[in-house]
Amino acid sequence: MDIKIADRMAHINPSAIREMLKVTAMPNVISFAAGGPSPEEFPSKELAYLAGKIFETDSYTALQYSITEGYGPLREITKNRIKRKFNIGRDFDDLIIVSGGQQVISLTTQCLVNEGDIVICENPSFVGALNTFRAFNARLIGVPMDENGMDINALEQILKAEKKVKLIYTIPTFQNPTGVTMPLKHRKQLIELADKYDVMILEDDPYYELRYSGENVPTLKSLDETGRVIYAGSYSKTISPGMRIGYACAHKDLIAKMTVAKQTQDVHTNAMFMMIVAQYIEQYDFDSHIRECCEHYKAKRDFMLNKIAEKLSDHLKYTKPEGGLFIWCEMPRGYSGIEFCKFAASRGVVCVPGTTFDVEENKDNNCFRLNFTIPSTDQIDKGIDVLADCIKGFKQ
Amino acid sequence: MDIKIADRMAHINPSAIREMLKVTAMPNVISFAAGGPSPEEFPSKELAYLAGKIFETDSYTALQYSITEGYGPLREITKNRIKRKFNIGRDFDDLIIVSGGQQVISLTTQCLVNEGDIVICENPSFVGALNTFRAFNARLIGVPMDENGMDINALEQILKAEKKVKLIYTIPTFQNPTGVTMPLKHRKQLIELADKYDVMILEDDPYYELRYSGENVPTLKSLDETGRVIYAGSYSKTISPGMRIGYACAHKDLIAKMTVAKQTQDVHTNAMFMMIVAQYIEQYDFDSHIRECCEHYKAKRDFMLNKIAEKLSDHLKYTKPEGGLFIWCEMPRGYSGIEFCKFAASRGVVCVPGTTFDVEENKDNNCFRLNFTIPSTDQIDKGIDVLADCIKGFKQ
Repeated sequence: MDIKIADRMAHINPSAIREMLKVTAMPNVISFAAGGPSPEEFPSKELAYLAGKIFETDSYTALQYSITEGYGPLREITKNRIKRKFNIGRDFDDLIIVSGGQQVISLTTQCLVNEGDIVICENPSFVGALNTFRAFNARLIGVPMDENGMDINALEQILKAEKKVKLIYTIPTFQNPTGVTMPLKHRKQLIELADKYDVMILEDDPYYELRYSGENVPTLKSLDETGRVIYAGSYSKTISPGMRIGYACAHKDLIAKMTVAKQTQDVHTNAMFMMIVAQYIEQYDFDSHIRECCEHYKAKRDFMLNKIAEKLSDHLKYTKPEGGLFIWCEMPRGYSGIEFCKFAASRGVVCVPGTTFDVEENKDNNCFRLNFTIPSTDQIDKGIDVLADCIKGFKQ
Repeated sequence: MDIKIADRMAHINPSAIREMLKVTAMPNVISFAAGGPSPEEFPSKELAYLAGKIFETDSYTALQYSITEGYGPLREITKNRIKRKFNIGRDFDDLIIVSGGQQVISLTTQCLVNEGDIVICENPSFVGALNTFRAFNARLIGVPMDENGMDINALEQILKAEKKVKLIYTIPTFQNPTGVTMPLKHRKQLIELADKYDVMILEDDPYYELRYSGENVPTLKSLDETGRVIYAGSYSKTISPGMRIGYACAHKDLIAKMTVAKQTQDVHTNAMFMMIVAQYIEQYDFDSHIRECCEHYKAKRDFMLNKIAEKLSDHLKYTKPEGGLFIWCEMPRGYSGIEFCKFAASRGVVCVPGTTFDVEENKDNNCFRLNFTIPSTDQIDKGIDVLADCIKGFKQ
């Protein structure tokens, strides 16, 4: 039979990344397509020990229904940690534990954005967020990116011209896909504009603690004195993505509504892993674990940047991120990112074409994204050689 | 600041059950309000052993990003099991692992129901489903229930009169909250009507295997030869609800869209527990575990029904379910379920008022729901005594 799909979902297609990831399961393929932490950095032994302990001492709490807001101790530990380290959270704020940072995007949109409302995004941006806004029939407007993130002047022009803007979505630190970080001055301007035009801001911040050089820049949420910023945090990049544990810190009225919305999605997040994460942070040196991750990823970032400088820099422009997971490559105009990625994949190296992250899904997008945290230095070495060969032999 | 909530969420309030559950954490309170399995039946030791093994041998798969469709072996095991045992699944069907049965309701609505479309529900029905339909701005129409479930004639009248019906939502077996099971004849009529009026059916079936007396009735999905039925299955009642593992079996075109929708909600379900459930079903005698649960719950159901017959039957009507978790009590007209439940709670016994499950959220609803799987027989004994005292002393 012919299934009649709702309008909101009719034109949304599977993410090219997730489709690409299926290809990368093939042997000998070098993948620069993923977006996760290196499995070498999973604290498996500690998590295994804690899981065993919890099964022994409190399996009831781990296996029975839990409350939607999340496991109490994890909420408290997370609140205290982000307050102490990043000055996130005011008296008007509250925090909910969710099933990965993606769910913050979904719950925020469900609670704030009516069909036909405008969501302003960086262009390019994270496809998982773009598809969520599309899935709620929001209208997307992209703001061009430069080396300072979202172009603040272009943003103001949009806010001046459009009356139905409900939300600005940004990844201000080590942006996905570009790796770019918005400087403090621009962050302050962004918040001023949101105040002036009475628009909410969704700050998606999964990479903040993965900084390999330069100085920390305050999060937007730490600058938020009115409750206008929804902060999406995650333990996916610093502990493990497979467990699906993230959190939202936002105005308490909004968190109350997001709690009701979460009841309609999945009732609550996996109880055992909420307990494991709480105890992991409490009983181990989480900061030292993150420092170890950063040393590892810094070495790989430096290696990939050096290799790109040596082999690819004559052929394309690329970003030099101070942290996060990604380097963004821009080929000359007229080059197709999609065709290039297909060509590279046929030679055994997988990257994600820029079209994937393009707010307009522009097929002529001339960019692609590289991940450096998961491949080994040996794979980076060989993979960039292949990409260099590809770009030389690549006919437009 | 004043947060402007989207229209779809503006009028949805937290579930009264979940609010009640907070009260039940008080000492000495007897709760008939929950909706889960008894913690005594959690196979904790087996799950603990499997978790340890997986951390040891395949922590990579358990902790890294997984694919949205779900862990391959769990999909296969689930497909095979429901085909073999219940004849569910045809060539046109596919299956996705989700974060609890609730997510099937959410993904189905997201993929099928436009704002303003009509969803037909049993009245009363599961509040988590009703709130999901409300959260997508669907229009709800309730069909009265009798001892055979949804009144099929009333259903046909609605289908005749209303042109925008997209979905019929039903819990045909041991319905929540009434405990009633729809007979085969009515199931066939329901599918015929859905065919005639070209409407989809969402069969929510978390209790099917918890049968304590009577004969199995074929699921709607097993009667579905066209792909019109979406089957929502769950491991929450037979293994553990805290882990949040369920599944949807539906037409493959719809499963493909639900997969994209799931990417926007939580990317994928907790990977470790997808693996644990797969290995639990493969390596242990799951059917025998379910038989043990059924013996336990049968004893409690019988105990509660006898106690109600003895103490409450002069004051109210009640259902005699052949399985599941719930007994539904209907007081005389003019009695308020909400006021009665408040009165009982003040005396230390918590039940859920019928208003919670009422499609119209009618405050005059004269019913309440009792759970018999979680309280001990001693608690059932004392709790029903208190309810009997309450109903005698209860002034309207």
